[in-house]
Amino acid sequence: MDFLEALSRPPLVLGVDPRPTLHGPEPLAHIRRYTLELLEALAPRLAAAKFQLAFFEALGPEGTALLWELASASRVMGLPVIFDGKRGDIGSTAEAYARAYLEAFPGSALTVNPYLGLDALKPFFQAASRTGGGVFVLAKTSNPGSGFLQDLLVEGKPLYLHLAEALEREGERYREGPWSRVGMVVGATYPEAVARVRERAPHAPLLLPGVGAQGGRPLKGEGLLFAASRALYYPGGRPDLKAALEAAEALLKALVE
Amino acid sequence: MDFLEALSRPPLVLGVDPRPTLHGPEPLAHIRRYTLELLEALAPRLAAAKFQLAFFEALGPEGTALLWELASASRVMGLPVIFDGKRGDIGSTAEAYARAYLEAFPGSALTVNPYLGLDALKPFFQAASRTGGGVFVLAKTSNPGSGFLQDLLVEGKPLYLHLAEALEREGERYREGPWSRVGMVVGATYPEAVARVRERAPHAPLLLPGVGAQGGRPLKGEGLLFAASRALYYPGGRPDLKAALEAAEALLKALVE
Repeated sequence: MDFLEALSRPPLVLGVDPRPTLHGPEPLAHIRRYTLELLEALAPRLAAAKFQLAFFEALGPEGTALLWELASASRVMGLPVIFDGKRGDIGSTAEAYARAYLEAFPGSALTVNPYLGLDALKPFFQAASRTGGGVFVLAKTSNPGSGFLQDLLVEGKPLYLHLAEALEREGERYREGPWSRVGMVVGATYPEAVARVRERAPHAPLLLPGVGAQGGRPLKGEGLLFAASRALYYPGGRPDLKAALEAAEALLKALVE
Repeated sequence: MDFLEALSRPPLVLGVDPRPTLHGPEPLAHIRRYTLELLEALAPRLAAAKFQLAFFEALGPEGTALLWELASASRVMGLPVIFDGKRGDIGSTAEAYARAYLEAFPGSALTVNPYLGLDALKPFFQAASRTGGGVFVLAKTSNPGSGFLQDLLVEGKPLYLHLAEALEREGERYREGPWSRVGMVVGATYPEAVARVRERAPHAPLLLPGVGAQGGRPLKGEGLLFAASRALYYPGGRPDLKAALEAAEALLKALVE
């Protein structure tokens, strides 16, 4: 599997952000069962499953083992995987992160943080290129305070657009047909930012979190992947397979119509 | 234990970045044994042990279990722990990362990435405040390309100094005596940046990676923690307890004289 195949699937991404307090007295076993059932039921309607690493790390070493099981299960179902870790570090450490996710699960994608610079991102791009994977670099994040650094004006232009232009240039080396392996994360809560990034980076797959619970609006266009976490994984505030299926249908309808 | 006690210890930080290929046919068992021996031998000469999470994640789920064992061992020895994960995410996800490290190991510190904004950093600061921990926010990193975003001029001043000023203000709420729980990471490879950050952030503990292998120079001053990874953990390019002890003595001598 090549991660770029995700762009030919329905544009919805299931965000898996498990909270143990919602899963009864044996939370890990219940998270495993619920997530497997959900992945199985939703897979044909999804571009990818996005695993939020923080929630697995918060479960301790058993959480990491569970993450690997669920990522393997997604891949066996033919469903592309996005590891949402927002990792970023220098040189050989970035290579270690690339090994941990992109190389351990070929054909998967990882979200990364650009603060350390392009040289620190390169090991991720190169690993994605070797493994048929993808990388989503944070550009403009969905939170209310994301402007703190991202919107700073540099020569009259917000920082995240400088970044988008640099990544489009760099991403040209990692392009396969219409899409580059170098994508970006732009919050669906900032539709204007999505449009401005797309204008400057026509070949970057864009991962748009914040649909649903965070109030992000669906937008139209090629190469856009809409991630919903709480709205899909915990519709109505708790694990609910039937409601999740309905929520997926409703979101997809809004996205593709 | 309160993490700020690390600032009253010798200013050297052992960076634990295990590479399995240097540890023979049973790498995890050997990494465990070597690191425990090293921690035991070096503890009195160290401010803290810094675990580079990427290298443990690259070992798969067993690597995470090993990380927890070694972090627990450090704490039992009374040696403060820094989780070097450079984490950063929004709201409830940042809280999950804080649970995974600061709350799971009270009195420890975590390195974090500021790209998502101050609102995304707050859960880390609050968790550190609750648990007697510390947070080191990336300001100016040690890699050659760190200027890509960090040195961008915003109103005539590099971005990392804007950040340092904002963090000093924010950190005032988390100050205990002379030092705040809100520290920063500044590469020892950029001594001028260390001086400029210190000038603007007199209460922030500064974690300075890049001493030794990356060529960073020792600097003098209060509240500075010098992290050496390869130079201490793999002196001469391989695990070597005796050489590590000698390297620690030599580095400390250069730092405190």
